[in-house]
Amino acid sequence: MVTSFEALLPEPQVDEVSVRILDAALAEYLDHGLRRTSVDEVARRAGLGRATLYRRFASRDELVQAVLVRESRRFFAAINDAVESLPTIAERLVEGFVVGLRTAREQPLLGRLLQSEPEFLLPFLTIHGGPAIAIARQFMADQYRRSPEYRANTEVDPDEFAEILVRLSMSLVLTPQTCLPLETDDDVRATARRYFLPLLKS
Amino acid sequence: MVTSFEALLPEPQVDEVSVRILDAALAEYLDHGLRRTSVDEVARRAGLGRATLYRRFASRDELVQAVLVRESRRFFAAINDAVESLPTIAERLVEGFVVGLRTAREQPLLGRLLQSEPEFLLPFLTIHGGPAIAIARQFMADQYRRSPEYRANTEVDPDEFAEILVRLSMSLVLTPQTCLPLETDDDVRATARRYFLPLLKS
Repeated sequence: MVTSFEALLPEPQVDEVSVRILDAALAEYLDHGLRRTSVDEVARRAGLGRATLYRRFASRDELVQAVLVRESRRFFAAINDAVESLPTIAERLVEGFVVGLRTAREQPLLGRLLQSEPEFLLPFLTIHGGPAIAIARQFMADQYRRSPEYRANTEVDPDEFAEILVRLSMSLVLTPQTCLPLETDDDVRATARRYFLPLLKS
Repeated sequence: MVTSFEALLPEPQVDEVSVRILDAALAEYLDHGLRRTSVDEVARRAGLGRATLYRRFASRDELVQAVLVRESRRFFAAINDAVESLPTIAERLVEGFVVGLRTAREQPLLGRLLQSEPEFLLPFLTIHGGPAIAIARQFMADQYRRSPEYRANTEVDPDEFAEILVRLSMSLVLTPQTCLPLETDDDVRATARRYFLPLLKS
């Protein structure tokens, strides 16, 4: 498992053949799930020999992990793109939550695996979820540390604050049934303002 | 599955034979897990015939559910006992979190099943976790609604507030690895004061 945020950003140098393999693997996983996809099927879909594939990804598990890392990187990049030009930490926080929740809800592989192979994914998001939480926390806390407000408000611990938001977000992705108003982006925005911003003030 | 808090409280009338069966089932589950425990073994441990057991619990699944409901009821009763005499909602909230987290961490059956049979328990606490969240939310929101502070502060939505705390608590039980100070009861108390009480004020 990837255990630090550095492993996710910046985008590593990836050759064109590796991209073809990762694209083919993602498409196979979406069509057939993880368990029922073999390395041979990925190679065939990519139009490559299995030896070529194995030179880049030594095992089935390594290929699965590489696809999941790429999807995670895209997830954080989407949030980053949405918030980096916003002027205040409060706005970045609120919009980051809006975009993060929307992106996670619409993430095709996440939705597919939670529905068809929860026994594979759930442990990495729960009982073995320490690394996933740490990566997301680090991403959010780094954003906060870079902001001018952080230097003005040393009362807030960026890691603790970020972890609370990460845990809530993960819970809402895993269990969407909720009494919180989170249906539209505007709902999500208002809920973030109502419940997260007070934590920045005290 | 139980889907409302009323199903958990008050304690139903339970005859002495049912109690013996539930005690025996709990002991078997702790010793051998759910999957490897048969109804026959529970009956033997209780010193009863299997016909007697089946008159009270029509199936293996019904017996499992009855044990889980009883453990859940005990969990909420422990929190209730710890907080009911406290004078303010803030104190009840903080102590409820302290006792709830400690009780969940020390809950033998929860710990056993999360370790040995996560594939059984995790779905009911995540992708099918709506009812579990709703029950805990209702328990906490009812406590809040009965408090004098509620009538003085109609800005706070008890259900929304409770759901945020329930989701965070569940996340911390499922994934204990955290940067939040939660080691001792005093740590938990301070963290609850630091991060939950501000939500009551705005």
